[in-house]
Amino acid sequence: MTLFTLLDHASVLIFALTGALVASRAQLDVVGFLFFACLTAVGGGTLRDVLLDRNPVFWIANPAYLGVASAAALVVFFTAHRFESRYRVLLWLDACALAVAVAAGSGVAQALGHPAPVVVVMGMITGCMGGLMRDVVSNEVPLILKQGELYVTCAFAGSAATVLAAQVTPSPGLAAIGCALVTFGLRAGSLAFGWRLPVYKSRPPR
Amino acid sequence: MTLFTLLDHASVLIFALTGALVASRAQLDVVGFLFFACLTAVGGGTLRDVLLDRNPVFWIANPAYLGVASAAALVVFFTAHRFESRYRVLLWLDACALAVAVAAGSGVAQALGHPAPVVVVMGMITGCMGGLMRDVVSNEVPLILKQGELYVTCAFAGSAATVLAAQVTPSPGLAAIGCALVTFGLRAGSLAFGWRLPVYKSRPPR
Amino acid sequence: MTLFTLLDHASVLIFALTGALVASRAQLDVVGFLFFACLTAVGGGTLRDVLLDRNPVFWIANPAYLGVASAAALVVFFTAHRFESRYRVLLWLDACALAVAVAAGSGVAQALGHPAPVVVVMGMITGCMGGLMRDVVSNEVPLILKQGELYVTCAFAGSAATVLAAQVTPSPGLAAIGCALVTFGLRAGSLAFGWRLPVYKSRPPR
Repeated sequence: MTLFTLLDHASVLIFALTGALVASRAQLDVVGFLFFACLTAVGGGTLRDVLLDRNPVFWIANPAYLGVASAAALVVFFTAHRFESRYRVLLWLDACALAVAVAAGSGVAQALGHPAPVVVVMGMITGCMGGLMRDVVSNEVPLILKQGELYVTCAFAGSAATVLAAQVTPSPGLAAIGCALVTFGLRAGSLAFGWRLPVYKSRPPR
Repeated sequence: MTLFTLLDHASVLIFALTGALVASRAQLDVVGFLFFACLTAVGGGTLRDVLLDRNPVFWIANPAYLGVASAAALVVFFTAHRFESRYRVLLWLDACALAVAVAAGSGVAQALGHPAPVVVVMGMITGCMGGLMRDVVSNEVPLILKQGELYVTCAFAGSAATVLAAQVTPSPGLAAIGCALVTFGLRAGSLAFGWRLPVYKSRPPR
Repeated sequence: MTLFTLLDHASVLIFALTGALVASRAQLDVVGFLFFACLTAVGGGTLRDVLLDRNPVFWIANPAYLGVASAAALVVFFTAHRFESRYRVLLWLDACALAVAVAAGSGVAQALGHPAPVVVVMGMITGCMGGLMRDVVSNEVPLILKQGELYVTCAFAGSAATVLAAQVTPSPGLAAIGCALVTFGLRAGSLAFGWRLPVYKSRPPR
């Protein structure tokens, strides 16, 4: 499981940075930075582990994850004022974290032998739920609700890539790389070029 | 457990329709419809299974549930624009889903031999929590908070009916039907005729 | 585990009072009071038990907790109109509940032999998450987000006190008292005297 441990570490680190950036937008104190960094960093993976009944949960088995997230929070606390546009940094870091977390979540579910739909959903949960908790708790509009942007779609496509890769290669490493590239590519295309799916066209909601 | 499997399927289908309707109100793309349909459909039952330590969680054991929810999402995506008043459809579908889910939740807890208070709470959790997650994530005002309407009360009464039915009939099927009728009846009375409990009368909150 | 059972009972009782007060601010009916009382009362401890894989969850093992929370809800329903300033009562009760719940959460994790970072996080989760669920579901601004107040910080300091106390005394009771005093003292100082940590200084968020 070394590969997935590495992916978990990477997604914890990057999601923690996004959580701390949200704390900076809410002008919290240093413990607030730590709280949001840890919530965002381990939220999605924790939900994955609880649903798959993996015991203990990954950061309880190895509290070093909490150290990584806390270090990221402190770095942001002391440096965030240097960034010209924190929200853009947040969006792009979130895209990286999404890609890595989807790969970690779908990869773990696949390694445990779950069927394809469960693999896809676990990738989406691990990728999207940490950021969703961050946004709901901090009263930001959830990124997954932003109209005219791909978000859940990227997680869905990346998880599907994990499933497809397993058909053509026995290597979970290659599958994880493919998944992360698909996820990040779609999200980056949406952020940079406005890629989107047709949106539900309706008369104004009633 | 065939009965409860059937109830779970029915509540997944109807809650998925409500989730997709909320996605249509938020004007999301098709993957957003799938996301909200699945979240609403399996949210309450998942919480029930995690709390009762039923492993695996029902939709991981049988991913066909996700297929049902996804099909419901697609149907709504392509047909919702035909409805004159989506919010009223949403309210009534939610009432049906509530009734079925309360019956499923309280019935499962009772079949597992839990005491009456746990049976009641599990019915309420299974019935109310999927819709609550849908509303919190989508930034709608939670239905359970609507003043002057019965909502949690219906789930409470339905769950209590399950407990009482077990005293007079050995049939879980009859208990489930009784529970669903009580829940839907109260909710329908509240929607159609404005039935309500006395509300806490206060000076303006300070 | 008698000590932690007692602490759990106390935190359930006091958090239930705060949940019912929030229900009174939202002008809900009596079942709404019961719902918010129970959600707030058992939310944090439930999350602790699920994450630590303690089975069954404490209020499923002993439904008397639900009775305590329900009784608290009824008391508030019939007496809250007598309070001049419900929000101040809410803040101070929440401070008491926070102190007791942090002691219960960190103490249980320590008794189970978890390492220090897990003990600290479990104290914070048990203390903060019930109130956070209450605030998110009821659309109040989460107390943990209030600028210029100590909240998560108090839970953090209290949990750390539990860990430190274990170095100097073998008695979990003394550790729990120390933890509760530190948590309540900091929170009370913040409420009464405006104690705070330096807040992240930034240009307006972008």
